[in-house]
Amino acid sequence: MRRLDRRRGILFVVSAPSGGGKTTLVRRALGNDLSLELSVSCTTRPPRDGEVDGRDYHFVSPTEFEVRRAAGGFVEWAEVFDHAYATPRGPLDAAIGAGRDILLDVDVQGARSLRRAYGTDAVAIFVVPPSRTALEERLRRRGTDAETQVRRRLERAAVEVAAASEAGIYDYLVVNDDRDEAAGDLFAIVRAERLRLGRRGAVALD
Amino acid sequence: MRRLDRRRGILFVVSAPSGGGKTTLVRRALGNDLSLELSVSCTTRPPRDGEVDGRDYHFVSPTEFEVRRAAGGFVEWAEVFDHAYATPRGPLDAAIGAGRDILLDVDVQGARSLRRAYGTDAVAIFVVPPSRTALEERLRRRGTDAETQVRRRLERAAVEVAAASEAGIYDYLVVNDDRDEAAGDLFAIVRAERLRLGRRGAVALD
Repeated sequence: MRRLDRRRGILFVVSAPSGGGKTTLVRRALGNDLSLELSVSCTTRPPRDGEVDGRDYHFVSPTEFEVRRAAGGFVEWAEVFDHAYATPRGPLDAAIGAGRDILLDVDVQGARSLRRAYGTDAVAIFVVPPSRTALEERLRRRGTDAETQVRRRLERAAVEVAAASEAGIYDYLVVNDDRDEAAGDLFAIVRAERLRLGRRGAVALD
Repeated sequence: MRRLDRRRGILFVVSAPSGGGKTTLVRRALGNDLSLELSVSCTTRPPRDGEVDGRDYHFVSPTEFEVRRAAGGFVEWAEVFDHAYATPRGPLDAAIGAGRDILLDVDVQGARSLRRAYGTDAVAIFVVPPSRTALEERLRRRGTDAETQVRRRLERAAVEVAAASEAGIYDYLVVNDDRDEAAGDLFAIVRAERLRLGRRGAVALD
């Protein structure tokens, strides 16, 4: 078979409402031997305890953020809860060309921008909690948010899930009820997408 | 979440050159708990040793075949090595409506017809041997074919692999080098396709 080892890299875009369990899922996916790399976002928000610059985020000043944005260095950017977040463009283009796959953790608007910019080179997955009640419990259990912020996140989650149903952004919906099941779903999507005929050149028996 | 358990059935269309290892792969897929049903084709060829009518094929006379074909009962039909084969339409329509998934084992022309008739309700997978040499070895090892038939099958395989590259028929390409790997690929495709957002209605957090 010809060219079976040569294909374009894929951008796996994963979104979920806060508390949807996405972070755990993404860490599992990266911990597995799927040779996935994580896209590291830029943000103007200060690091939380345990976060490492260059691994969790590139922590930048508002001025540096604006300079890079104006220069076209970001494929998408957004303000969330008074802080700015962005996805640097360069590493994505390099990975697609080299056949490396990247996992991106972005919100619905970010997914829409990535889909628009990268078309079928991007595969977008929406991770949803099994219910509003389950999401509320997870947010309270996490204990990092004040009551008003839990409510804000719940409202935002309902809007995001509705927006995620919109045609043309997400390819897959993963319900994060059981963690092992959800991780299995995510792995299956990654494995299957790598087998798509459209990502390869012509094949011939020789 | 609403409507997560309600989706249309999917037709998983699997094709491979003779000797590509497709039969083993399909049996594994059906033996697993993927709740896949096998579409049983009609054929005018006589049963081989061990084949059971209604399980392996519906064995019919040329006259009965023609009557059903003329009545529009087949979604696709073909002549292969002097015998006629066809896929009955009724069970497929019923399965899609009821949300049951069907596995179909057809050639490239059959896959083209199914794709045309069922659009995105069909997912087409082409299984290829790792090389022409590997295919030749498998055909000879099988020992069911005379030398001339081995050559006919090899020629046919080269044509089929070229045709399978044609845009718009197959969604996935599985290289059947290692059997466990290939079965894992097939399972991943089935699992991922069931998660496609387009197969569900709108979702909402409630």
